[in-house]
Amino acid sequence: MNGAQSLIQTLVDSGVDVCFTNPGTSEMHFVAALDEVPGMRCVLCLFEGVVSGAALGYAAMRGSPAATLLHLGPGLGNAVANLHNAKKAHLPVVNIVGDHATYHLEYDAPLTSDIAGIAAPVSHWVHRSASSSAIAGDAAEAVREAGNSRIATLILPADVSWGDNPDGPAQPLSASLPVAAPAARIDAAARLLGNGKRTVILAGGRELSAQQGELLGRIAAVSGARLMSETFTARVRRGAGSVRIDKLPYLAEFAIEELKSVEQLILVGCPAPVSFFAYPGVPSLLAPDGCEVFSLAGPEEDVESTLQALVMQLGAADAEPERYPLQRGTPPSGALDANSVAQALACHLPEDAIVVDEGITSGMACYPATATAPAHDWLSEAGGSIGYGLPVAVGAAIACPQRKVICLEGDGSAMYTVQSLWTMAREQLDIVVVLFNNRKYSILELEFARTGARGGRPGPKAASVLDLGAPDLDFTALAQGMGVPASVAETAEAFSEQLRDALAAPGPHLIDARIPALELG
Amino acid sequence: MNGAQSLIQTLVDSGVDVCFTNPGTSEMHFVAALDEVPGMRCVLCLFEGVVSGAALGYAAMRGSPAATLLHLGPGLGNAVANLHNAKKAHLPVVNIVGDHATYHLEYDAPLTSDIAGIAAPVSHWVHRSASSSAIAGDAAEAVREAGNSRIATLILPADVSWGDNPDGPAQPLSASLPVAAPAARIDAAARLLGNGKRTVILAGGRELSAQQGELLGRIAAVSGARLMSETFTARVRRGAGSVRIDKLPYLAEFAIEELKSVEQLILVGCPAPVSFFAYPGVPSLLAPDGCEVFSLAGPEEDVESTLQALVMQLGAADAEPERYPLQRGTPPSGALDANSVAQALACHLPEDAIVVDEGITSGMACYPATATAPAHDWLSEAGGSIGYGLPVAVGAAIACPQRKVICLEGDGSAMYTVQSLWTMAREQLDIVVVLFNNRKYSILELEFARTGARGGRPGPKAASVLDLGAPDLDFTALAQGMGVPASVAETAEAFSEQLRDALAAPGPHLIDARIPALELG
Repeated sequence: MNGAQSLIQTLVDSGVDVCFTNPGTSEMHFVAALDEVPGMRCVLCLFEGVVSGAALGYAAMRGSPAATLLHLGPGLGNAVANLHNAKKAHLPVVNIVGDHATYHLEYDAPLTSDIAGIAAPVSHWVHRSASSSAIAGDAAEAVREAGNSRIATLILPADVSWGDNPDGPAQPLSASLPVAAPAARIDAAARLLGNGKRTVILAGGRELSAQQGELLGRIAAVSGARLMSETFTARVRRGAGSVRIDKLPYLAEFAIEELKSVEQLILVGCPAPVSFFAYPGVPSLLAPDGCEVFSLAGPEEDVESTLQALVMQLGAADAEPERYPLQRGTPPSGALDANSVAQALACHLPEDAIVVDEGITSGMACYPATATAPAHDWLSEAGGSIGYGLPVAVGAAIACPQRKVICLEGDGSAMYTVQSLWTMAREQLDIVVVLFNNRKYSILELEFARTGARGGRPGPKAASVLDLGAPDLDFTALAQGMGVPASVAETAEAFSEQLRDALAAPGPHLIDARIPALELG
Repeated sequence: MNGAQSLIQTLVDSGVDVCFTNPGTSEMHFVAALDEVPGMRCVLCLFEGVVSGAALGYAAMRGSPAATLLHLGPGLGNAVANLHNAKKAHLPVVNIVGDHATYHLEYDAPLTSDIAGIAAPVSHWVHRSASSSAIAGDAAEAVREAGNSRIATLILPADVSWGDNPDGPAQPLSASLPVAAPAARIDAAARLLGNGKRTVILAGGRELSAQQGELLGRIAAVSGARLMSETFTARVRRGAGSVRIDKLPYLAEFAIEELKSVEQLILVGCPAPVSFFAYPGVPSLLAPDGCEVFSLAGPEEDVESTLQALVMQLGAADAEPERYPLQRGTPPSGALDANSVAQALACHLPEDAIVVDEGITSGMACYPATATAPAHDWLSEAGGSIGYGLPVAVGAAIACPQRKVICLEGDGSAMYTVQSLWTMAREQLDIVVVLFNNRKYSILELEFARTGARGGRPGPKAASVLDLGAPDLDFTALAQGMGVPASVAETAEAFSEQLRDALAAPGPHLIDARIPALELG
């Protein structure tokens, strides 16, 4: 058995049995080993930002890591943006990054690069495997290090891959499990919840599950605290039957307004809320001065057990939370805009769907509109780096082949990782892409105004940089060019029907939703 | 004047007057300042790999840097692969990377990242500007540090951008100029060239100019040395009237064969030749054992003056070099394949064209076929990271608006930075993309065989990872989706006519050249 074979066998034995890849020459022995060692599904992506985004989406839905296989420093570089998103979402990824043979590095061939240096800012653990007999143990260690929330990057020199490993695969290693918050913290939270002050419990981080929502709902029912979720919780279970939890608005001004009378903020799985960007004259911290901020559980702790303990402490086990009813609404009619898209989505969303949200300004109406749609999971980009939506949809669909995935995608953000469409077609994934085509970086028009630059009014050069027209992007052509059937919707009725039909059919489909840009001011 | 305005004014005053960008919120004051400060051309790209590749192409043709404007760590991450290519090509780039306001960093907002850490592996110089009054001086320093061969990365916090800079722009700083090799080295080279041994002079690095070619030709004429160029010299002036210089083959086996009887290797602007990748049983160094390797001038030295001095020393000023004649050949007919594409290119190449070569396996025939075409520049990817071709063509066309650019592009490699097509359309650049569409990562099929993995024969899973069919990519649809007119060529006649017509018309055009994949073994 060679090093690559022992590596793949160890990954599979450790539960990592999907590999998203864009390989090169230095990874050819790994690729060859896929046919020698059973059990690893390998998904080809045409660009490494798709690879890392798919790994993120897979981890969000499975709670355990996929592997990536990347080609030296530049291939890893292309994966950095979505690894950043995965890291900020506390989601696990095991990166396997091929390198030149150990003895070849000193000659500084063209693709020689500082792989560990590129990996460090987006990894919790980086290791270069030293030999073919070490690689299997290194792989087991990488999976342990990734656990359920971390990025582990294992550098695989080509000769480590092709050399003989007489010891074969390594035994899987157990990751340390997250633990609940200590009793003292639970006591303190219970005291805060009983002191009569205006309280918000803000939950978020890696996941806000159905069970966490239930527990939060009981706590709110007995304490009167308001439940809110982070703006970009990586995964939220929501919809009809779920406990009511309001999302903190994206815009700092609105979030500050929402929180202005809060006296206590209890954090569950997330840090204190801060403005996404800094703006002249706008504070970074969103909670008002004098608000007590108390962290009940951090993102690395066992949030569910912590909430369970708090429910017990409060005697809230039988409390009845406020829930969202099932209320689909009617299909929209008339002009197509962000609101009618949201209305159609609420109307047609299938039970147990997965919504991947990179709709940016145009998608903002979709979240509130679907609160009473059938129960579903909602994935958001915790790291804020665009180019997240399409590849995350790929990974989510690979993780959950029985579920429908709906990807809400802005036109500008779609273009960073547009190659995802090809993998959707190749793997015939059940993904409906709702492409908000407003021919602008609408968010940047908004942000330009918010920063106050040039009195908030772009001159002609700036306006040109925020504009995606001239030429317009034809997303139907782009999708079809990569094998994904597509349609154009210019009215609410057309959009609604196309969405319904696309959700009823197997395989991917893109709807080019021609909508007006956000009206400013 | 705010910090951003003083920054842009300093860049313009320092000769950096083109900025390739994909900005975000933290860069909005820079964007606003484009309308306040005259002289900076700003080119929008839809993905940061296009930004950095365009900066590379611009620098290759202008010999001086463009600026990039990038959005925090993830935006810089997306630019890493082509910055790697620029660094390996010894080409200058000035990166401006926006960051959160200084006071906002401590709150670890979603896009907070280790920008300096991401920059370091692909930069010679990294600096975070500390204040609005420092930014102009920092910009002048960045341009000096970039010089004509280095990557300088300047981190621009949002409040440094929007804060007041009472001092205004800074004075440009002079970069230190490269110097010629010392006399002792020139003497030593002259002695080697006179000792009667079989000698190859290998030239390459950043540029092999017409003047360098002339000088090398005279040296070869009097010494009998053979002239060769590196496989991936970043820029070579060649074609009819140029001195004959043979390119070292890409495949290590062929390169070793080519060099096997060489007793002395004299290096000019490049390191000793090494195998692009390592393969079991193939040596890393391509020169034979016992061959004396002598470096006349490194890539950071003044190669032209060094060669000038050597010509004087050898008394070769009046020697007549061997030159390529003008010989265009006839248009091809019959089936379309890599050879008929090369024949058509040789037939139609305009005087003073710029050829950007990322044709990979399919493009290999084009270089020898065009040796006797009208004089032109040939750009190759010195860093080996694919996704180079299309954006480099963008940058070259911006740098040289009067010249025709021909981009030889593989189907697989096109997909990494396919968003370049949109910028070609927006800026109406005179670029003809010859898209070698063989529906495979043909180079990886070849490399798989060369590594000897699984006896050189991919199993079904490996074969699937090397295959770009299922679904086929429709590059006509992709180009048209981004506003670039496109046509399909399936015969040699059709390709030849489409190439001729596209070169005669203004603006971009893509030819989807449907060719068979390389036949192996």
